[in-house]
Amino acid sequence: MIKKAVASISGGLDSAVLAYKMKKEGYDLRLFSFDYGQRHRKELAHAWQISQSLDVPWQLIDLQGFGSMLKGSALTDEIDVPEGHYEEESMRLTVVPNRNAIFLSILWGIGSSDPDVSRIGCGVHAGDHYIYPDCRPEFIGLLSQALRVGTVNHRHHDLQIYAPLLNLNKAQIVRLGHDLGVPFDQTWTCYKGKEIHCGKCGSCRERREAFQIAGVPDPTSYEA
Amino acid sequence: MIKKAVASISGGLDSAVLAYKMKKEGYDLRLFSFDYGQRHRKELAHAWQISQSLDVPWQLIDLQGFGSMLKGSALTDEIDVPEGHYEEESMRLTVVPNRNAIFLSILWGIGSSDPDVSRIGCGVHAGDHYIYPDCRPEFIGLLSQALRVGTVNHRHHDLQIYAPLLNLNKAQIVRLGHDLGVPFDQTWTCYKGKEIHCGKCGSCRERREAFQIAGVPDPTSYEA
Repeated sequence: MIKKAVASISGGLDSAVLAYKMKKEGYDLRLFSFDYGQRHRKELAHAWQISQSLDVPWQLIDLQGFGSMLKGSALTDEIDVPEGHYEEESMRLTVVPNRNAIFLSILWGIGSSDPDVSRIGCGVHAGDHYIYPDCRPEFIGLLSQALRVGTVNHRHHDLQIYAPLLNLNKAQIVRLGHDLGVPFDQTWTCYKGKEIHCGKCGSCRERREAFQIAGVPDPTSYEA
Repeated sequence: MIKKAVASISGGLDSAVLAYKMKKEGYDLRLFSFDYGQRHRKELAHAWQISQSLDVPWQLIDLQGFGSMLKGSALTDEIDVPEGHYEEESMRLTVVPNRNAIFLSILWGIGSSDPDVSRIGCGVHAGDHYIYPDCRPEFIGLLSQALRVGTVNHRHHDLQIYAPLLNLNKAQIVRLGHDLGVPFDQTWTCYKGKEIHCGKCGSCRERREAFQIAGVPDPTSYEA
């Protein structure tokens, strides 16, 4: 039986681990990244690189037509990217409103169009629950339900959102990725788009800490 | 108090009535249309024209980056547009999978970005329930819930999907539009993109019938 799946890949660590996990589980996988006018497009090049390493087709979906209308986030606007710990209040500035609903709805539409696709992969995880409401299990559950009801005529089979990292923390994800042979050096985490990881923004701090806790060598070059 | 709203407008009859209704209710309205690679772009020009008549800002959101990946629909593919009654099985060919989830998620993201926006307008109605699962009350209810939970930090107020036509049939919508002074001649219904309405496709038949039942003069020129 063909096990086809589509999944989003950001160029970061979590979705890379997700992609490696799904490939290992035997899914015939297609990966998609979204260009919503991120301030630096560096992560998109990393998403492509990881797809190449996995030997999986990758497509970039251009959402710039409305990306600039999703406001109030340091990831798309001219607001400074906050430094400090990932779970701090300041990190709320990095919320792009409704991002995951948009990405998952698009991938669900694409998945519904192919009767062999049974999973929509998504790398949301426990470390994101505090700051990002659209990474929480309650949201993923409700959205799944809505999308199933909204495409009930189109689903030839049991299409599902697949979020196997949903209850793992970042250190557990690093450990899992290590076991799967994920090329961590090809992943990009930093919210600033410099030559190498800054090491100071909330996202870099979380990454460093995760490798330390997991006891996995961190191949990342940090500025600080 | 400012009552701001965003709404989608297709160029068809229903969303034109919705826009006129919301303007009359005092909403400071912004209208959006989506270009998802419809086979004929005629309806988009009509959406613009209606916005002009209403004197409301209109923006076109380009989704062509993935529109072609939403397959299995006569509205985007090379499949022939079926003729016959709107509620027939053949009209299922006109389902674009997950279209409303995608449109509403995007508008919700845009709405969440402006603290004064309280409504996301959507012209779904009872005539569409049979064929299009993403026009049914159950879907709209579940999606609203998901989007509210997914943007709980971003909503400064009570953002809601507003679908006041949800339980009206097409004839009732024509009657309402007539009372609101909607310029029906500026709306476009036909699934074929010819000079004038074909009069034979399911969508044209439904339109004609609605004017007849409502007892409202139909300004449309039909080919047949």
